[in-house]
Amino acid sequence: MSTTVPAASTTPAAFQPPLRLLTGPGPSNVDARVVAAMSKPLIGHLDPVFWDELLVMADMIGTVYGRSDGASLCLSASGTSGMEAGIVNLVAPGDTVIACSGGFFGHRIIEMLRRRGANTVELTVPFGQHVPVEQVMDALAAHPEAVMVCVVYAETSTGVAYPVADLGAALRASGHDALLYADCVTAIGGMPIEADEWGIDYAYACSQKCLAAPPGLSPITLSTRAIDRLGRDGMSVPYSLDLAEHLRFWLDRPMTYHHTTPNLQYYALGEALRLSLAEGLNARYARHADAGAYLQAGFQERGFELLADAGCQLAQLTAVCVPEHVDGKAVQAELLGAHNIEVGGGLGPTAPPIWRIGMMGVNANRPTADRVLAAFDQVLAR
Amino acid sequence: MSTTVPAASTTPAAFQPPLRLLTGPGPSNVDARVVAAMSKPLIGHLDPVFWDELLVMADMIGTVYGRSDGASLCLSASGTSGMEAGIVNLVAPGDTVIACSGGFFGHRIIEMLRRRGANTVELTVPFGQHVPVEQVMDALAAHPEAVMVCVVYAETSTGVAYPVADLGAALRASGHDALLYADCVTAIGGMPIEADEWGIDYAYACSQKCLAAPPGLSPITLSTRAIDRLGRDGMSVPYSLDLAEHLRFWLDRPMTYHHTTPNLQYYALGEALRLSLAEGLNARYARHADAGAYLQAGFQERGFELLADAGCQLAQLTAVCVPEHVDGKAVQAELLGAHNIEVGGGLGPTAPPIWRIGMMGVNANRPTADRVLAAFDQVLAR
Repeated sequence: MSTTVPAASTTPAAFQPPLRLLTGPGPSNVDARVVAAMSKPLIGHLDPVFWDELLVMADMIGTVYGRSDGASLCLSASGTSGMEAGIVNLVAPGDTVIACSGGFFGHRIIEMLRRRGANTVELTVPFGQHVPVEQVMDALAAHPEAVMVCVVYAETSTGVAYPVADLGAALRASGHDALLYADCVTAIGGMPIEADEWGIDYAYACSQKCLAAPPGLSPITLSTRAIDRLGRDGMSVPYSLDLAEHLRFWLDRPMTYHHTTPNLQYYALGEALRLSLAEGLNARYARHADAGAYLQAGFQERGFELLADAGCQLAQLTAVCVPEHVDGKAVQAELLGAHNIEVGGGLGPTAPPIWRIGMMGVNANRPTADRVLAAFDQVLAR
Repeated sequence: MSTTVPAASTTPAAFQPPLRLLTGPGPSNVDARVVAAMSKPLIGHLDPVFWDELLVMADMIGTVYGRSDGASLCLSASGTSGMEAGIVNLVAPGDTVIACSGGFFGHRIIEMLRRRGANTVELTVPFGQHVPVEQVMDALAAHPEAVMVCVVYAETSTGVAYPVADLGAALRASGHDALLYADCVTAIGGMPIEADEWGIDYAYACSQKCLAAPPGLSPITLSTRAIDRLGRDGMSVPYSLDLAEHLRFWLDRPMTYHHTTPNLQYYALGEALRLSLAEGLNARYARHADAGAYLQAGFQERGFELLADAGCQLAQLTAVCVPEHVDGKAVQAELLGAHNIEVGGGLGPTAPPIWRIGMMGVNANRPTADRVLAAFDQVLAR
């Protein structure tokens, strides 16, 4: 691959992004109070005032994850880095890992495990479904050497929820000591996560969906036993993803420099977490559940089918099947171009033809659902 | 390591960062117009309007790096990730690499090479100096199998500039095909970088120093031959750091999803790059040179010694030796607490007692230097 980019000779015109309703799979629109927080004075990553705020944020992240033990913090990166950090820190080359996939992000976990050199037991189901818990437990019985089980709690590519609580209970009942790894990217701030109670050892998420902060940060959480396995057998971890280093930076005082944190992003996420706690997590989850159910009923009343099995449909992310003879991508383009409404399409080459609609963060309410439904009506009536 | 963080039961008070003059090694204060750019409407990473802006940014980044061939783009992460991306993409385990270190960041490159499993030839000089070009060429002659030579163009921990142009010329004259890797974190936007002319194959930087944007992004640049070596021999690269994937996301259309970019950060960096080009890069470099020389003269007139050898002193970062019988950390703390002025100290356990003072971005001017000098006078007079 070789690409030539000519050098700019003049200053380009100012960037003028349009005002969009962001009801795709994320980012969602940012709460205005969160944007305002980014205009507070920048201070440095080694400023004692910032150190104190990191501890406050660790505490709030732990609350949203339902974690009282272990540690919760934030990576200065996207959810993709949170996904990979859990793998390269907890899996050594040659380790056996059981990975469940029913969509794009489950598949991406498998790809990262491949790059790590893991011996991956792939449990795959069609888009719209989830791997039954019994099948995971059978795989674990067949592979007693497995060090981790990976699931996607809220599969952003299909709108499917994984019964993590059930899997966690089954894992505990089995007495197997494999770690439980859960993608919570589309879940965080929009539906309950109970890391302690369910036995989640590692989870990662992002800032830009149900938390209504801008994209750029990945809140993560580790159980005590996950922390105890960091650095196991002297295995090598890329420095930038090394969770032992991140933990030291976040939680030890005096602070040890690791990297320069994107502090205005931290201001934003800190404000978003405060707003979530002030609203009340249960009230927030109920708001997401209501908005999602309302949107889904609207599509079903119009005769559309949803991709996800009814028993595992997420509220905050709905995958609507594109009817035959409709050009789904053209509809998306018209929603964006004529209505300034972003919705997602299928992700990756194997995705079925779908639209993916997010009711997340500040957009998780019935008026927004009505606006999306009305725009679909207009575009499809043409 | 095990840490218990209690869960928050109530919403913490709002975060209220103080207004600081950021004249440490970075971040520097953000230009007000750059902060304002972050309040523009958020659009998604797969929005065609954003795709166009990425190409504009790639072009501007190429200009600042002096690159017309190859490719320039930005990682959604700190300079630390830019540092590591260059290593894991261009060095396979077992490869020989020649790494020069005269400070904390040179040493960090060596640490990352160690984690990558490279056979590292370490050329180390005391803090304040740089490895002579002849010594690098001797090492290369002794290790004809070397695939890369790593230097820090502007060593943030010591204030030392590396003669990258001379090294590049010597490399070309030798006919050796080792890649040239250069840390430009403290250089970008504050002093000339001529990637084409000097033969830099990979360079990385950050947003928060001389470019006066907030921390969070790492502009990088690759030569055509560096691009051609990506994915060499099927070597495995962590997915989140995979530069072939990043290049596809930035430069191929239609876009292929890789990760969710922190778009408000991109708005900020895009504005900062526009402001740099509008000022004129040479005028900007001259401003940094003048401010740095003025500050350094001020310290020398007061009898302080500078850490860097005179022939390789950076303008934008000055390491001032803490006099005997002065508690350098106490001075830093009083500058911060009583004057709201941040300056840096020595970085890492082996650093000599120094203060590190940045004249970067919007702070690169004589009035700011005067304010810093006056505050030192006041604190040290006590």
